[in-house]
Amino acid sequence: MSGGPVLALVGATGAVGTVMISIINNRETVPWGEIRLIASARSAGKKIHVRGEDLTVVELTPEAFDGVDVAMFDVPDEVSARWAPIAAARGAVAVDNSGAFRMDDEVPLVVPEVNADRIGDRPKGIIANPNCTTLSMMAAIGALHREFGLRELVVASYQAASGGGQAAIDRLRAEVEAVSGKQVGERAGDVREALDAAGLPVSDSPFPAPLALNVVPWAGSLKDDGWTSEELKVRNESRKILGIPDLKVSATCVRVPVVTTHSLAVHAVFERPVTVGQAHKIFEEQPSVVLVDEPEAQRFPTPADVVGGDPTYVGRVRQALDFPNALDFFVCGDNLRKGAALNTYEIAEELAGRL
Amino acid sequence: MSGGPVLALVGATGAVGTVMISIINNRETVPWGEIRLIASARSAGKKIHVRGEDLTVVELTPEAFDGVDVAMFDVPDEVSARWAPIAAARGAVAVDNSGAFRMDDEVPLVVPEVNADRIGDRPKGIIANPNCTTLSMMAAIGALHREFGLRELVVASYQAASGGGQAAIDRLRAEVEAVSGKQVGERAGDVREALDAAGLPVSDSPFPAPLALNVVPWAGSLKDDGWTSEELKVRNESRKILGIPDLKVSATCVRVPVVTTHSLAVHAVFERPVTVGQAHKIFEEQPSVVLVDEPEAQRFPTPADVVGGDPTYVGRVRQALDFPNALDFFVCGDNLRKGAALNTYEIAEELAGRL
Repeated sequence: MSGGPVLALVGATGAVGTVMISIINNRETVPWGEIRLIASARSAGKKIHVRGEDLTVVELTPEAFDGVDVAMFDVPDEVSARWAPIAAARGAVAVDNSGAFRMDDEVPLVVPEVNADRIGDRPKGIIANPNCTTLSMMAAIGALHREFGLRELVVASYQAASGGGQAAIDRLRAEVEAVSGKQVGERAGDVREALDAAGLPVSDSPFPAPLALNVVPWAGSLKDDGWTSEELKVRNESRKILGIPDLKVSATCVRVPVVTTHSLAVHAVFERPVTVGQAHKIFEEQPSVVLVDEPEAQRFPTPADVVGGDPTYVGRVRQALDFPNALDFFVCGDNLRKGAALNTYEIAEELAGRL
Repeated sequence: MSGGPVLALVGATGAVGTVMISIINNRETVPWGEIRLIASARSAGKKIHVRGEDLTVVELTPEAFDGVDVAMFDVPDEVSARWAPIAAARGAVAVDNSGAFRMDDEVPLVVPEVNADRIGDRPKGIIANPNCTTLSMMAAIGALHREFGLRELVVASYQAASGGGQAAIDRLRAEVEAVSGKQVGERAGDVREALDAAGLPVSDSPFPAPLALNVVPWAGSLKDDGWTSEELKVRNESRKILGIPDLKVSATCVRVPVVTTHSLAVHAVFERPVTVGQAHKIFEEQPSVVLVDEPEAQRFPTPADVVGGDPTYVGRVRQALDFPNALDFFVCGDNLRKGAALNTYEIAEELAGRL
């Protein structure tokens, strides 16, 4: 690697950072002259294999951004809030995967196949990557919106544990082991008792209720009027990405015992009439969407069948029976890839082409 | 027991029949002078303990209905289709939990707390019990409808394995054991491989995809235009029970790795304005509904916490931000109890009071 722009990855040793490095390693070509891995002091000095070279992780300092063209951030909100402006001040474009800047009017919120045109308009030198739940459906929704004009979204999510990071994955696996072989799930509280007996009280969990053999209608933190932060992100980020400030959205976000890949049941109402055939054609023509919709053969996307993939998978496409200009469908997207690392990297690649 | 009406239970040894007997055994009082257990020839002669007596299961024959006042049927559609009219012809009122008669114009479809007034209008001598998914939300929806006038429902389900009977429960438990302790769920197809390795290929499953560490957007059989039978039941049965022939409904039915208790994310639009406070009051005043809605404490219903209970549990009640007169909420109901056996028995009790 030489001669191209310099890419930095901040949070290189985290869950999303690890997926990011695997994406970089699997890319056929990359435009970068140098790749710099940045993490906290604790991880500095660690060596990570990137495209044939062992790179040494460097500590997050202002000087780490010297000469950097594009700096991708996969770190907690408060770390991004502090450090993305520092990277920008040093001349890098910061592509941030935290929630710190998503609703900032001076920061574009970008899904390249939906609104790549927004990438150039970044007065703060920062571009935000959407929340994983919003991202898991946005490529499919954006393609339909271009053609039919989206007006309303009613969404229910089936969110994977890994949205909560590695600790949440470990917790789900431990819970599955704790209930395996036990006759629980038929009496109120018996799943909690099995977890207690295994030394896994819910009070120690990243989830507010058992997740094995259960579903938990809660993700994120409580905001106004009973809505969770996750539900409001789906609403507000969809509006911003699609450029529809008055889009009507209701979302219910529910955690399910799936390791990775978010699913959503989507009810979408459009300005113009839309048929299943037209929707199929649009999904088939959209490069980042894969249509899996053969109901006669009971073929549809499921998290376990699509996890690890880059595209957004869509199936169960039906014309609403009672709502004009409306479709119901089911969508699955890997929340660590398109939902996080992949979209961030796609923004960085798009930037590289414009430098 | 003597002097009261005679109750027959057809399908006494099945999954729902077993729950039915436990409901009968746990009732403080019952109005019946005699309880008769009826099943296929294979189960005839078996003894089952009912309210202090060992009752002998008798074979399903026309004569088995002689003297019966109310005959509850928990058997497959085709058995009900044949035998419910025979019971009726012998003078019994048949209360049928199959899908055979639900959409028959001459058969009322009853949820006692919603439309008990329909019980008397039964020209065929048959009353139908709704599908478990519809029933899991109907007590809550019906209470809101009475006050605010329901116009639209957009529903996504989180359906338990036991909707598919005991074989489906056994399958889910076997799948959980097969994935327990394994690092699967992060690569497409690895859950299927773990099931294959455990001798549990999906081709042998009652579900069309892995259910452990997965969600499956399919329940029932394929009907017109990509809709499943389960999704159409939610629409058509809700219309009939609520007496709203033009109710707008879109449902997406999804199976989740939960043993028992269906959950639904509901978006409901009403004729008149409705606040969270008003909805809370209505749920609190409805005897068969339990409100669990303290978002500050992250308290909401989950299947593992309410399974085995009679009521419909409601939480996460929010006023829709962008849709006038609309609420979003989450509801859990035990699909074997209120969703099947309990509602059937409540209809039978209601009939006993009118004999």
